[in-house]
Amino acid sequence: MTKGVKIVTIGGGSSYTPELMEGFIKRYEELPIREIWLVDIEEGQEKLNIVGEMAQRMWDASPYDVKVHLTLDRREALKDADFVTTQFRVGLLDARVKDERVPLSYGMAGQETNGAGGIFKALRTIPVILNIVEDMKELCPNAWLINFTNPSGMVTDAIIRYGGWEKVIGLCNVPVMAMMTESKLIEKDPKELIYSFAGLNHFHWHRVQDLAGNDVTGQIIDKMYDEENGMPANIHGVPFFKEQLKQMNLIPCGYHRYYYRSEEMLNHMLEEYNDPNVGTRAQQVKQTEAELFELYKDPTLSEKPEQLAKRGGAYYSDAACETIASIYANKNTPIVVSTKNDGAVPDLDPEDVVEVTAYIGAAGARPIAFGSLEPAQKGWLQLMKNMELCVEEAAVTGDYGILLQAFIINPLIPSGETAIHVLHELLLAHKNHLPQFADKIQELEAAGVEVKDEVVRSLQ
Amino acid sequence: MTKGVKIVTIGGGSSYTPELMEGFIKRYEELPIREIWLVDIEEGQEKLNIVGEMAQRMWDASPYDVKVHLTLDRREALKDADFVTTQFRVGLLDARVKDERVPLSYGMAGQETNGAGGIFKALRTIPVILNIVEDMKELCPNAWLINFTNPSGMVTDAIIRYGGWEKVIGLCNVPVMAMMTESKLIEKDPKELIYSFAGLNHFHWHRVQDLAGNDVTGQIIDKMYDEENGMPANIHGVPFFKEQLKQMNLIPCGYHRYYYRSEEMLNHMLEEYNDPNVGTRAQQVKQTEAELFELYKDPTLSEKPEQLAKRGGAYYSDAACETIASIYANKNTPIVVSTKNDGAVPDLDPEDVVEVTAYIGAAGARPIAFGSLEPAQKGWLQLMKNMELCVEEAAVTGDYGILLQAFIINPLIPSGETAIHVLHELLLAHKNHLPQFADKIQELEAAGVEVKDEVVRSLQ
Amino acid sequence: MTKGVKIVTIGGGSSYTPELMEGFIKRYEELPIREIWLVDIEEGQEKLNIVGEMAQRMWDASPYDVKVHLTLDRREALKDADFVTTQFRVGLLDARVKDERVPLSYGMAGQETNGAGGIFKALRTIPVILNIVEDMKELCPNAWLINFTNPSGMVTDAIIRYGGWEKVIGLCNVPVMAMMTESKLIEKDPKELIYSFAGLNHFHWHRVQDLAGNDVTGQIIDKMYDEENGMPANIHGVPFFKEQLKQMNLIPCGYHRYYYRSEEMLNHMLEEYNDPNVGTRAQQVKQTEAELFELYKDPTLSEKPEQLAKRGGAYYSDAACETIASIYANKNTPIVVSTKNDGAVPDLDPEDVVEVTAYIGAAGARPIAFGSLEPAQKGWLQLMKNMELCVEEAAVTGDYGILLQAFIINPLIPSGETAIHVLHELLLAHKNHLPQFADKIQELEAAGVEVKDEVVRSLQ
Amino acid sequence: MTKGVKIVTIGGGSSYTPELMEGFIKRYEELPIREIWLVDIEEGQEKLNIVGEMAQRMWDASPYDVKVHLTLDRREALKDADFVTTQFRVGLLDARVKDERVPLSYGMAGQETNGAGGIFKALRTIPVILNIVEDMKELCPNAWLINFTNPSGMVTDAIIRYGGWEKVIGLCNVPVMAMMTESKLIEKDPKELIYSFAGLNHFHWHRVQDLAGNDVTGQIIDKMYDEENGMPANIHGVPFFKEQLKQMNLIPCGYHRYYYRSEEMLNHMLEEYNDPNVGTRAQQVKQTEAELFELYKDPTLSEKPEQLAKRGGAYYSDAACETIASIYANKNTPIVVSTKNDGAVPDLDPEDVVEVTAYIGAAGARPIAFGSLEPAQKGWLQLMKNMELCVEEAAVTGDYGILLQAFIINPLIPSGETAIHVLHELLLAHKNHLPQFADKIQELEAAGVEVKDEVVRSLQ
Repeated sequence: MTKGVKIVTIGGGSSYTPELMEGFIKRYEELPIREIWLVDIEEGQEKLNIVGEMAQRMWDASPYDVKVHLTLDRREALKDADFVTTQFRVGLLDARVKDERVPLSYGMAGQETNGAGGIFKALRTIPVILNIVEDMKELCPNAWLINFTNPSGMVTDAIIRYGGWEKVIGLCNVPVMAMMTESKLIEKDPKELIYSFAGLNHFHWHRVQDLAGNDVTGQIIDKMYDEENGMPANIHGVPFFKEQLKQMNLIPCGYHRYYYRSEEMLNHMLEEYNDPNVGTRAQQVKQTEAELFELYKDPTLSEKPEQLAKRGGAYYSDAACETIASIYANKNTPIVVSTKNDGAVPDLDPEDVVEVTAYIGAAGARPIAFGSLEPAQKGWLQLMKNMELCVEEAAVTGDYGILLQAFIINPLIPSGETAIHVLHELLLAHKNHLPQFADKIQELEAAGVEVKDEVVRSLQ
Repeated sequence: MTKGVKIVTIGGGSSYTPELMEGFIKRYEELPIREIWLVDIEEGQEKLNIVGEMAQRMWDASPYDVKVHLTLDRREALKDADFVTTQFRVGLLDARVKDERVPLSYGMAGQETNGAGGIFKALRTIPVILNIVEDMKELCPNAWLINFTNPSGMVTDAIIRYGGWEKVIGLCNVPVMAMMTESKLIEKDPKELIYSFAGLNHFHWHRVQDLAGNDVTGQIIDKMYDEENGMPANIHGVPFFKEQLKQMNLIPCGYHRYYYRSEEMLNHMLEEYNDPNVGTRAQQVKQTEAELFELYKDPTLSEKPEQLAKRGGAYYSDAACETIASIYANKNTPIVVSTKNDGAVPDLDPEDVVEVTAYIGAAGARPIAFGSLEPAQKGWLQLMKNMELCVEEAAVTGDYGILLQAFIINPLIPSGETAIHVLHELLLAHKNHLPQFADKIQELEAAGVEVKDEVVRSLQ
Repeated sequence: MTKGVKIVTIGGGSSYTPELMEGFIKRYEELPIREIWLVDIEEGQEKLNIVGEMAQRMWDASPYDVKVHLTLDRREALKDADFVTTQFRVGLLDARVKDERVPLSYGMAGQETNGAGGIFKALRTIPVILNIVEDMKELCPNAWLINFTNPSGMVTDAIIRYGGWEKVIGLCNVPVMAMMTESKLIEKDPKELIYSFAGLNHFHWHRVQDLAGNDVTGQIIDKMYDEENGMPANIHGVPFFKEQLKQMNLIPCGYHRYYYRSEEMLNHMLEEYNDPNVGTRAQQVKQTEAELFELYKDPTLSEKPEQLAKRGGAYYSDAACETIASIYANKNTPIVVSTKNDGAVPDLDPEDVVEVTAYIGAAGARPIAFGSLEPAQKGWLQLMKNMELCVEEAAVTGDYGILLQAFIINPLIPSGETAIHVLHELLLAHKNHLPQFADKIQELEAAGVEVKDEVVRSLQ
Repeated sequence: MTKGVKIVTIGGGSSYTPELMEGFIKRYEELPIREIWLVDIEEGQEKLNIVGEMAQRMWDASPYDVKVHLTLDRREALKDADFVTTQFRVGLLDARVKDERVPLSYGMAGQETNGAGGIFKALRTIPVILNIVEDMKELCPNAWLINFTNPSGMVTDAIIRYGGWEKVIGLCNVPVMAMMTESKLIEKDPKELIYSFAGLNHFHWHRVQDLAGNDVTGQIIDKMYDEENGMPANIHGVPFFKEQLKQMNLIPCGYHRYYYRSEEMLNHMLEEYNDPNVGTRAQQVKQTEAELFELYKDPTLSEKPEQLAKRGGAYYSDAACETIASIYANKNTPIVVSTKNDGAVPDLDPEDVVEVTAYIGAAGARPIAFGSLEPAQKGWLQLMKNMELCVEEAAVTGDYGILLQAFIINPLIPSGETAIHVLHELLLAHKNHLPQFADKIQELEAAGVEVKDEVVRSLQ
């Protein structure tokens, strides 16, 4: 890397890219970037151009001389890359609209990461990421893959398990958000607290200690019920049951609301779904994105606009930049990442990908051993990991039986006939991005199965 | 045991007792019983008398001279017992009515074994059984405890884990039922098939082999969809999704319908709940029981009446008698029982109680190692066992937080505010049998929480 | 199997064959054999003829009409076999002489099963047995493979792990011997005791219960020190330390003397080695075998001769015949066998082959879950299994580094330069039977390494 | 800790103390010490005075105002301590002489950490450290215990397991030594390499990566055979077998020579034992210590003398000071420590103490998950940990049977009659420090057992 670092961002046309640029600019002194390649697909050409020009403007306004390349040729971009980041979305935001609306049209949570929607996002994404990995083996075999494509845990797991690629780190902004808001609750600087996370992406818990080594988790929990607790913009703010948190003496992640308060979360999503002026989260995000791209078009804008925070991925790119800088400069920064377990969460197999606090340095992620969880957390964690394994297997094999199993055991999907309808309609809705299920989809079409939700139909 | 065997049945006033007697009479040559003690509590005195006299008539009509003792003095009965069987129901059938109706009044499955109802049955039963174990340590330290009180798995686990009593075997009739019906499906005698069960009580799977050693599980699954498949009388007959069963190549137990077809099972229960002419399963059973006791009163009746089969526990007592005879005569009979895992189900802790095929002989249950389960089964099994552990801990400690956790992670209970209402009303409905939760109950009463279901209110 | 069972014995020219015949004749009513094929290699032709004629005479003297076929054509024999038994010895008894004498020439135990000798026996045998398995996949894919070729545990493990053949059961006579002698010690019939074995071949422990379910292990241990304790003919009779046995409350197997009394065992072997009138065990066995074959030549002999008991494998063939009959007639007989763990010994991986009490029937071996062992047993067991895994890998890959590791971690081989000499001389001594190590052997020869023991040199 | 840190060193009269002082002085700016208490027992009064005065002189020569208190009153010292370090030796160096000479007098390795000697060191030390922990619970319940008393792994494990004290970190200088010497081998600064250690104290392996994330373990191994490899002063320099190291692609610790080259290590120790001009390591150390104390007496000396390096514990105290500073200042320094596993070494129980690379900060040690080891390492590691567990149990209970088991399974002790002699003589030799074995010792004395080694007899 003597000539400086080459960074490739797949899904470079994303609205997140300016935040990523900001993060790199901020860290240039420790992470001397030579060139950045933003890669996208044909359907994303226009966005790529808009955001790419914005990105170049940001660098031009900085003291650093970095060239941002825009390309639809992934292989050209990957050649000799040092770091590859992935933030693409197979089927774009419309696919997320489908992930959310089809289940909701049957009164069921779509939830884009671990629920029915998340399952389908994984089915669409895993084959594509495995293709990218094959290219990387050939074109940049020493590069690190930094994944923030959701569902980040399953995607990272599949990269190692099925792709055989170990130099990968999965990222998510949820832990960063939690650390920022919780430290405020007890009037501390985040640096004055020691966080230990363990679990899976969007399904983890953490404990907190202060600099005297005392466990202050309970203290934070108490404060969460005193005051207004900051929550991720993309999760509806229903509080956890306090007695549950006190019992576990751990803080769940925001997404645990889908499991610990499923009734209220579902009702909220249905409300938004049923209100044509609101729409599901994906529809709201589409609106925000459109606004963002309008802003990005402004040739005088060379700073990340305020409005990006509304998008819901705050700190995401910051986590990515910090991870890359930590690897490059062997900084040993504690970051919460998806990585091979190796025992850190002893209740899961050492080969499973988990999301844990890890020290990030030149050797990649070194996960901290968290110790066994208590039964209530352990059991559900084991269920979720095994659900993930079913989804990954389905994504790779196109086996309908194992996909059905994933649906049936997923705790956000009530099993039964309705679940089957949702499953079948999602297969149809995403048929262009699920070649591995072509036979089953054909069978469904032959049987006259049809997507019912009008919005989804309009997107086909 | 030179003078013959002394058997004590706690909950002897149960309508099942005649079946138990029939089982003992049938096996008298290998299990020479000297005396039988039927124990009950004051509220059950009348039933005890009716069924006790019936029991004595059955023996009198047999070639064997066995005395049936009736008593309310448990300690007197336990003295020098060889085998103690438990079939009591704390709070009688009315408690089961509450277990079922309170959740259903909120549109939620009550399900008396693993759902909200089953949790409360465990909370009521575990402290009582631990008392019985304390008496046994003193009065009959060499006796075997044969438990068929539900939830049989959790109760058996608590007996070992918290009672420190290892000579216990938990029984259930579900596996026997499965073996009887499935062999018919492929036109075999049950003896021509080799069944291997693994999992938890009311949450297990099995595979089947024929005498050539071939796996015929898939063949049975196919037949289940060809013809009318016999199911336990107490489970509504919605079929499993065939693709799921083919994928796992295992046969789930009947109770898995609550998990694998939760939508349909809930709808069926709600239908019965809402139809005043039907009522929940407990109400139906109450009716059946009343009829049975009318029959038992007939001083000329000295045989188990046909109608008992409708009660839903067919083969239950037969399994119990066969277990006792197998221990006594070291028969090495393969029976599906709840027993300490010891590794038989490697996906759970060796110390956990599991339900597996075991060879029963003088050394008790020797569980057969089943091997690891595939992800879809493994994950859910691990969740359920950990849910059980939370319930047991709540039963023993009276800790509300851990009880709340059990409710939240239980897959039959959608988490949220409604679940809390159900939890609170169940605490109130069962207050006389939950001394460990006295403080919480008082708090709820002070806060004006009330049971809403009229039928349950009428039973208070 | 309608026309009766076809049995194939590989290594049919062994002196054990008459015992095997006796076992089959005794069980003919439950195991109706149609034909027996004794297979051997060219070097064994003469012995095959002698013992084969003897075998036919035994059947002719019985009421049953069974034809004993003798052949050097393994593939012809395997065609449509129902059961294949293996009792061959690659390199014949001379190889065992080398296994024992080379280590002893350096003052180190040779020990033909788990020590240096056993390691080399595995290296020679595993590739051959994997070839046999390949033939079976083609010629008799439904047959059961009953292995008594030593080291039985490693060979059985390799058959499953590397051969992918699950229908295999490994046998050993050590547990039978223990059960016969121990029951006498406390004046019981073996049928009045319940034995539970767990561990590895030649490295297991067992507990014993009586028909009242009481643990009588301690009682037997006490008796072992009162009276003359019967031991296998092939193990020198030094007693275990009583305090050790009382502490574990388990009975080790005879071969544990090599580990628990290694000093005395080594001294005894060295004594025999140094006495030209005695020689190592293999040399003694060669003598016994020669005498046996003289007897077998007698055309009037049609019964197993008394002298066979001296050979050291008493009950071996009986265990094999009983295993085959139990599978054929689904007898559910408890037999101690080497089989896939599946959790029975939770301290080892479910995929490992272990030696445990199992119920043998049409479904093969159903191992009984034994539960976790205490530290002192557990640690050593884990070491031995991992040592076995290194040996198997070396046998299959011919990797010298992993073979060296097996030598260094084997507790019967003191690590250091002398161990390397032993390792190298054994490679040379067995060069004709270790094609996978051809390169290393060539390198050693080029370096002028030579076998020092005169007897071994004379056998080259 | 607003008024500065209070440090208590138990065994403060040790010759190591000046190194400890040097380490604290060097780190004063980040670890502002208020007072240091050196505690010793009456037999150590003279040494305590000598080294204590030397320590005060060192501080006086520094720019910092720190008072060194000398006391025989442990409880006075512990009051309100922030950090307690332990470097005491029950029975002083004479006890180590016995640990080494008794086994060697029977031709067996004494080895003061994991062999027979180490077992006895643990038996003497564990009860004392558990007493200290009881005092700490009362007098300084928030203090950290930094243990460098050997056998550091077993002692640390016992503190957690039997003492119930979680705020403990066990230290050893072996990993530091390895890191210093190995980086030189490949001409790197230690900071340019990333070390990952896993295993047990004096029984661990490590891998090494460079700043490009590449595994350079094999490169270092190659260099170890090119040049003179630096080894700990207290381990004889026989090289490992290169093929073994290449196979494992890990670097064992220096103490692994006792296991991987046991023949040569034993011969070396016997040579020293038999040479009256050399003597065992303990005797050599006694000589070095005497010389050191002569130096310390010099009232003009206020710097750690060069000769201390010969003592064999170089970097020991440095590791301790760095650990304390890292906790105090939350430095997140990667240090190799003995700490609760929590899954870091998945082949051992999460509750076991292991020795691993951990990040040390205000929350104590956060062990890095290493992942599963390969069979050859795994098996032996599991044996050693279980051996440790037997020793700890023996230390706490005084049970002779479990002590015998530890002896028999310890790979450095050939089992048999000679081992029993060694065991018995060691019990006698240490009788004043083994109150828990008083009965057994009395029995041995009554039976006339006597220590044979003259040197040991002279120390009684």
